[in-house]
Amino acid sequence: MITTHPYDDDKLREECGVFGIWGHVEAANFTALGLHALQHRGQEAAGIVSFDRKQFHAHRGLGHVGDIFGTEEVMASLKGRAAIGHNRYATTGDTVLRNVQPLFAELAFGGFALAHNGNLTNAATLRHELVQRGALFQSTMDTEVIIHLMALQTGASVIERLVHALSRVEGAYSLVAICDDMVIGVRDPLGVRPLVIGQLPEERAYVIASETCALDIIGADFVRDVEPGELVILDQYGLSARQVFPKSARRFCIFEHIYFARPDSIVEGSSIYDARQRIGAELAKESPVAADVVIPVPDSGVPAALGFSQQSRIPFELGIIRNHYVGRTFIEPGQQIRDLGVKLKHNANRAKIHGKRVILVDDSIVRGTTSRKIVQMVRAAGATEIHFRIAAPPTTNPCFYGVDTPEKEELLASSLSVEQMADHIGVNSLAFVSIDGLYRAMGEPARNAAQPQYCDACFTGAYPTRLTDREDRVSPQPLLFKELSRA
Amino acid sequence: MITTHPYDDDKLREECGVFGIWGHVEAANFTALGLHALQHRGQEAAGIVSFDRKQFHAHRGLGHVGDIFGTEEVMASLKGRAAIGHNRYATTGDTVLRNVQPLFAELAFGGFALAHNGNLTNAATLRHELVQRGALFQSTMDTEVIIHLMALQTGASVIERLVHALSRVEGAYSLVAICDDMVIGVRDPLGVRPLVIGQLPEERAYVIASETCALDIIGADFVRDVEPGELVILDQYGLSARQVFPKSARRFCIFEHIYFARPDSIVEGSSIYDARQRIGAELAKESPVAADVVIPVPDSGVPAALGFSQQSRIPFELGIIRNHYVGRTFIEPGQQIRDLGVKLKHNANRAKIHGKRVILVDDSIVRGTTSRKIVQMVRAAGATEIHFRIAAPPTTNPCFYGVDTPEKEELLASSLSVEQMADHIGVNSLAFVSIDGLYRAMGEPARNAAQPQYCDACFTGAYPTRLTDREDRVSPQPLLFKELSRA
Amino acid sequence: MITTHPYDDDKLREECGVFGIWGHVEAANFTALGLHALQHRGQEAAGIVSFDRKQFHAHRGLGHVGDIFGTEEVMASLKGRAAIGHNRYATTGDTVLRNVQPLFAELAFGGFALAHNGNLTNAATLRHELVQRGALFQSTMDTEVIIHLMALQTGASVIERLVHALSRVEGAYSLVAICDDMVIGVRDPLGVRPLVIGQLPEERAYVIASETCALDIIGADFVRDVEPGELVILDQYGLSARQVFPKSARRFCIFEHIYFARPDSIVEGSSIYDARQRIGAELAKESPVAADVVIPVPDSGVPAALGFSQQSRIPFELGIIRNHYVGRTFIEPGQQIRDLGVKLKHNANRAKIHGKRVILVDDSIVRGTTSRKIVQMVRAAGATEIHFRIAAPPTTNPCFYGVDTPEKEELLASSLSVEQMADHIGVNSLAFVSIDGLYRAMGEPARNAAQPQYCDACFTGAYPTRLTDREDRVSPQPLLFKELSRA
Amino acid sequence: MITTHPYDDDKLREECGVFGIWGHVEAANFTALGLHALQHRGQEAAGIVSFDRKQFHAHRGLGHVGDIFGTEEVMASLKGRAAIGHNRYATTGDTVLRNVQPLFAELAFGGFALAHNGNLTNAATLRHELVQRGALFQSTMDTEVIIHLMALQTGASVIERLVHALSRVEGAYSLVAICDDMVIGVRDPLGVRPLVIGQLPEERAYVIASETCALDIIGADFVRDVEPGELVILDQYGLSARQVFPKSARRFCIFEHIYFARPDSIVEGSSIYDARQRIGAELAKESPVAADVVIPVPDSGVPAALGFSQQSRIPFELGIIRNHYVGRTFIEPGQQIRDLGVKLKHNANRAKIHGKRVILVDDSIVRGTTSRKIVQMVRAAGATEIHFRIAAPPTTNPCFYGVDTPEKEELLASSLSVEQMADHIGVNSLAFVSIDGLYRAMGEPARNAAQPQYCDACFTGAYPTRLTDREDRVSPQPLLFKELSRA
Repeated sequence: MITTHPYDDDKLREECGVFGIWGHVEAANFTALGLHALQHRGQEAAGIVSFDRKQFHAHRGLGHVGDIFGTEEVMASLKGRAAIGHNRYATTGDTVLRNVQPLFAELAFGGFALAHNGNLTNAATLRHELVQRGALFQSTMDTEVIIHLMALQTGASVIERLVHALSRVEGAYSLVAICDDMVIGVRDPLGVRPLVIGQLPEERAYVIASETCALDIIGADFVRDVEPGELVILDQYGLSARQVFPKSARRFCIFEHIYFARPDSIVEGSSIYDARQRIGAELAKESPVAADVVIPVPDSGVPAALGFSQQSRIPFELGIIRNHYVGRTFIEPGQQIRDLGVKLKHNANRAKIHGKRVILVDDSIVRGTTSRKIVQMVRAAGATEIHFRIAAPPTTNPCFYGVDTPEKEELLASSLSVEQMADHIGVNSLAFVSIDGLYRAMGEPARNAAQPQYCDACFTGAYPTRLTDREDRVSPQPLLFKELSRA
Repeated sequence: MITTHPYDDDKLREECGVFGIWGHVEAANFTALGLHALQHRGQEAAGIVSFDRKQFHAHRGLGHVGDIFGTEEVMASLKGRAAIGHNRYATTGDTVLRNVQPLFAELAFGGFALAHNGNLTNAATLRHELVQRGALFQSTMDTEVIIHLMALQTGASVIERLVHALSRVEGAYSLVAICDDMVIGVRDPLGVRPLVIGQLPEERAYVIASETCALDIIGADFVRDVEPGELVILDQYGLSARQVFPKSARRFCIFEHIYFARPDSIVEGSSIYDARQRIGAELAKESPVAADVVIPVPDSGVPAALGFSQQSRIPFELGIIRNHYVGRTFIEPGQQIRDLGVKLKHNANRAKIHGKRVILVDDSIVRGTTSRKIVQMVRAAGATEIHFRIAAPPTTNPCFYGVDTPEKEELLASSLSVEQMADHIGVNSLAFVSIDGLYRAMGEPARNAAQPQYCDACFTGAYPTRLTDREDRVSPQPLLFKELSRA
Repeated sequence: MITTHPYDDDKLREECGVFGIWGHVEAANFTALGLHALQHRGQEAAGIVSFDRKQFHAHRGLGHVGDIFGTEEVMASLKGRAAIGHNRYATTGDTVLRNVQPLFAELAFGGFALAHNGNLTNAATLRHELVQRGALFQSTMDTEVIIHLMALQTGASVIERLVHALSRVEGAYSLVAICDDMVIGVRDPLGVRPLVIGQLPEERAYVIASETCALDIIGADFVRDVEPGELVILDQYGLSARQVFPKSARRFCIFEHIYFARPDSIVEGSSIYDARQRIGAELAKESPVAADVVIPVPDSGVPAALGFSQQSRIPFELGIIRNHYVGRTFIEPGQQIRDLGVKLKHNANRAKIHGKRVILVDDSIVRGTTSRKIVQMVRAAGATEIHFRIAAPPTTNPCFYGVDTPEKEELLASSLSVEQMADHIGVNSLAFVSIDGLYRAMGEPARNAAQPQYCDACFTGAYPTRLTDREDRVSPQPLLFKELSRA
Repeated sequence: MITTHPYDDDKLREECGVFGIWGHVEAANFTALGLHALQHRGQEAAGIVSFDRKQFHAHRGLGHVGDIFGTEEVMASLKGRAAIGHNRYATTGDTVLRNVQPLFAELAFGGFALAHNGNLTNAATLRHELVQRGALFQSTMDTEVIIHLMALQTGASVIERLVHALSRVEGAYSLVAICDDMVIGVRDPLGVRPLVIGQLPEERAYVIASETCALDIIGADFVRDVEPGELVILDQYGLSARQVFPKSARRFCIFEHIYFARPDSIVEGSSIYDARQRIGAELAKESPVAADVVIPVPDSGVPAALGFSQQSRIPFELGIIRNHYVGRTFIEPGQQIRDLGVKLKHNANRAKIHGKRVILVDDSIVRGTTSRKIVQMVRAAGATEIHFRIAAPPTTNPCFYGVDTPEKEELLASSLSVEQMADHIGVNSLAFVSIDGLYRAMGEPARNAAQPQYCDACFTGAYPTRLTDREDRVSPQPLLFKELSRA
């Protein structure tokens, strides 16, 4: 059986998208729409918590936003003028409902719910300590550590509890939280994951979201990014903000520009689509080749391929057609069809490939398995030469900040040279954009090795925070209870 | 829309059944079968936790045991030679999955899961105190208080933690718990709810269960009741027991004999069926009447009606036929059918009623709504006289020990005299067994008012424990988060 | 995996129940309720067709009536003041939706829908002939033959077409049909299957149904049976009737009295419950035995056991308790539990069995598999003697008139003597009521061998019609197309 | 509630895709894959019938191919080395299962199943005649007429019956059928709908399919198109063909080139992608305009936009981003979001639009509702001018050959001039490709008005066949029976 995910198994995957809104009669509906626009950041589960001035209402489920929140019954149950939401991609096989965010808890001061994009690098260490003190964990999510730290900080205000809890954690986080009198947004001191503020033009209600595409769908105007180390409050007085952690050097995830964010989003002040196009142009300058046609691996390779084509003046064509009708599963025939998994989603457009020298452009190479199959498909369609151009440097290191990366050994670039990779994938030539080329596309003169302008650890290994759990060799709390029950 | 439960809305309902087994290759399968035999004690949800010497496996669901545990996939997931299980009837509308037992937690010493039959009378008070100290509750069940008390008792053994926690609680409990080296059973000092020990003849494995009918289905022999205040351990060394609370006067729930327990169970040393038959005979002695036929309200009134018939020598007939094919819901016609809810489940057997003087026997009267409709149906089938005989005293007080009772005002006997009740229900005569008659049927000379031999608070208001939450007027932790998601 | 049907696999099963109503605003609702009351006649599928003076509306499904018709959406779709319905038990594994009745067709004069209780004995022969002429069959049901015969009778009225079609068929049928200006009921010339007429007291609307219990649930009064060979019309003028086939000797199915019909139904003028009780009394006269207790196999053996007890003056007790909470499936433990299938539904009431001489009463023996397990269970519960008494003669021949019977070889009584059967089942003695005793219980002096008063072919082999398909050795149209799709 | 179909409500929709294979061990699996590749031709239901030399096996369902055929159970049930399949888009609300193809019937010679792409223009007339003669129809599909005509042609061979039946029908059809010794493909004399032959390289098994993309997915080589009026047989002897109807002038549907077929398919000898690109180039020649960027309406406008860009040398950019995660339904907020339906699927890529003069390219305009919303969205994103270019002539007439078209009045171009349409949609300029420009893009010098080279009735009203049902004013057989039951 072949399970056909909407995402490609051979891509890195962002793990989460978050959304929050205060003071709007359509709070839950807008949150559902915002999550739909952020669906690319997490496709396996989603949840919304709303508050109606008396009670919190929650609904969480497995699947896509439209499936979870597409009934009147569900939406009618999410009452109130404030809400937060979360999309999730599960990193382990354990997407049981209890691991679906927002996570909520009844603290001494009242209810509190939290949605987290990112990953903590000392969660296991903290969890171990908390369990010894008598804390009962209800999920296997690192996010729960934050809630427990808040619960134990008795006597303090919500904001004090949250800031105290965050002062204990390391790693990356863009958080959205809700309690009975506000919606809160916070971003870690390095600003690794995105978080933006928007405002609805007529009602003046504020929203926060992972990306601007979630503002567009509800007609909200983009206000500004939440700053690294900044905590923003949406409440009856509007928007207020405080710098709760000293603003250290910004280290935004450069892979958001390369692949994670939606091309129509504006992130950290620049258009994702433009950035990708510029990377493609940079690539064309660095690694030109004589060819007849520039073909993107759809859909993520399209902007870079356009940039490559515009720079190189070699025609751009959709040489690979994507089939958008993808069911959940297909039964693999006993007599196997070569590369069926790829063929269920793509087909070579023979008319634009046969007898041609092809430049194939993709955004990145992770394991290389899909790349190899796509190259085979293009070769079988009659390409005379295939030159593979990658709009990212070689991916050599795992991410610990909220991205699902294979183990280092599985990363093709961690063990093979570029020539070996070209052989393995079966192309006539292979080139990656250089790390400096990438920074140039971002508008920097080059990468500042002493103090990189972005988090680029997946390419360089330069992790911007401690990796405490790794150092302490504290494995995450073992999953003692394994529950079958799925939604 | 009429929802037709397998149970009658106009009966008191036992809230839970529990089961545990240690050291048998079919642990989970036997637990599912035991829960099936205990289905009458809780029909809305069920759960099983098993342990395979490395990991705990859990599955919980809404519905009947056969529906939740009827697939190979589910049963194969419940690995190991030890398991506990729980049936639940939900007292509030909130049967979401997070409120389905066994409740499990990862404590500092490892995993622990707990299943509870009964109800604590100081749970809200304790919960309030725990939340103030920073405890995070994940359910609205009083049982979770026990787990939190255990978690905070750091440094102690499992048994010490559990006994300490139970020393803080008041109320009724028959508990079954599992951790990584044993299955535990405990019964409160008064022994309000039943709990029995059995043994499988060939494998020598021990089991504990709410009633003996759960032993019969798996072919286990009855060993003995767990004593009030006793804790029993099932582990690799077999069965061991310790009296963890001083044995105070036994106060077993007398309503288990009247209605809750299955007629084929042996509880506290005596046959439920026999007890009911003796109550019927006692009733015939106390309130005889000239009539042509004795008719039970099926199915629960049958043993008492047989006892009445045998004592009075008036023929017993099935004058009301029960339709066992009951779907979940029926749409009420716009032009209403009189007493449709009753007719979906019962029909008068006109041949045995028409032109006859009928003695109708039922086990108890709660609100009287169903009784009234059944009487109308019998009258419409041509009965010339209807004499209603009830195999319990008038139910005048709510239960706080794990039984779903309406508020006092809704109990018909709390506001009407027997004559008024007869009028209300529409019968020619009405009689209840006397409280002393009931005790006589139990083999006692009479009720010992100073120190009643049973808990009979629903008839007398003599509650055998403090009702702390009531006294303190601590309402249960408000359900801050209301989640739609059902299984 | 053990599938636990509400019915016992070791009983004969009636295949269908039918219902029809004309001229009532609650037509579809009442039909659903009628089908619910007739659920015992067919538990695997059901369908309703209604007519709203413009269009027919249909809904059919697999499962119980309450599950299929328990939603507002479904009931709201069944518009109109006329409706017919059908319950079905599937004889083959092929309960796909296209085989669920009512069967409907668009004939030249308009729409026509048909529901059939019974079975035709020349359907395969007729079907073969029709296919050769170009008829396209859409189901594998014998009933479809009637529709095709009607379709080919061009130019005639509905009634003429139907009567013509029925004049070609052999076998047993109680039909209910609907077209755009009437509801029709017909019974075969021998009256093998029941069909009764009722009337709603206030609205004066007429209904037809398989049994009177379907009248009781909607508050309709019993008017009379439809006569053998009679066709009744329910339309805007009320009820009219015509004798379309000469009334030959009545041959009502005697097994309806023994097991199929509900005990609270009045069939062919007599109470089913009374009849069963009289059979039990007859059995006590014919085959008395010294014993301590009379115990029925629940639930179908209860009336006969009561009759036996009343005649023999040996006390009646519920020595076997039935568990009414039966899920769909249970996983059989690897280490098998003896007689688990029986234990899921029954448990011995040890208190009434241990140390006793038991008379066990059941309605019939088919394969004997369940009887054997129940006897083992009773023996294990401590019975010192078991005397098995059967309220029917030995079942030796299959039924071809709408009852699901095993092949002759599988019928225990077809190959074993009564003594051998007693051995096989494991009882101290076994006795069946005699065929004349059975007729006496029906109020006849004895069976009239020349012209039996009932169809008793299952006991005697005296089939009252030709068995053309058997004689011609025409196998039913092979199921060329096997479709997986279930509802 | 907004239902978000994968297709755009404001496009014409092809109604069906067909597939057949003979002599391959993976027959059903390959058919499922072929149907998946043809999913764009019908997304609401699908079915497969296979034959295993003894029996036919069928499975049909509502939904996408991957959902219907994605389980081992289903695929394992479709046994045999021959199979046909069908994708369906439902034209009415009535996609009940009985209307899902393949349609199958048990004829006198054995089983026969049929899948149809196209539409008959005298089906109602024929149906009326057949019902009068006694035929029983089981669906509301015009295809069933063919089966009935075959059934009545007694005594003839399958091929004779089929050819006879087809000689009676008018309209468009590409059929795939299966019986017990062959798979058959036929195309109507005008060849309106596509049908191609392929061959698997190693096993030499032949397949037939609507488009070549269904060959690509299973690795089959393209052999040739089935010719208009040709019948091909796939059987144990391989492929054979006969011209069963005189080849009249070919009238292939030109809209297949414009929109219906997949861009990677080769249809009637030419690449769909190339054709669309040439139409875009033709459009750029006919209606040039000064602008900054060429933006396609995704995804169908992409090839024409590329052609336009390449011809005009104005840069091509993805100015509208499509969200591929589309759930089934979304609840419309009470306070409506402008153009939410469009926003759920598209977002303007502001970086490429703001401050720019935009040429927007789409394949066609039907009602204009979606176009209008997309234009508003592009305008709101800051376009200074919007010039709309349509890669088809104005659509003014409904299709009667298997395409779902709105009534003539709903077609925007049928009542408005091009200027009025520009106003209505809100663009600065609007231009359609001319009919001769379209023919030039197809490689013709111009449209031959006397004998058009394609069926272009939707643009010209020149229907290539009689429209008998329209002329006779025979409405289709009214849907007398309306059934709720969906899969």
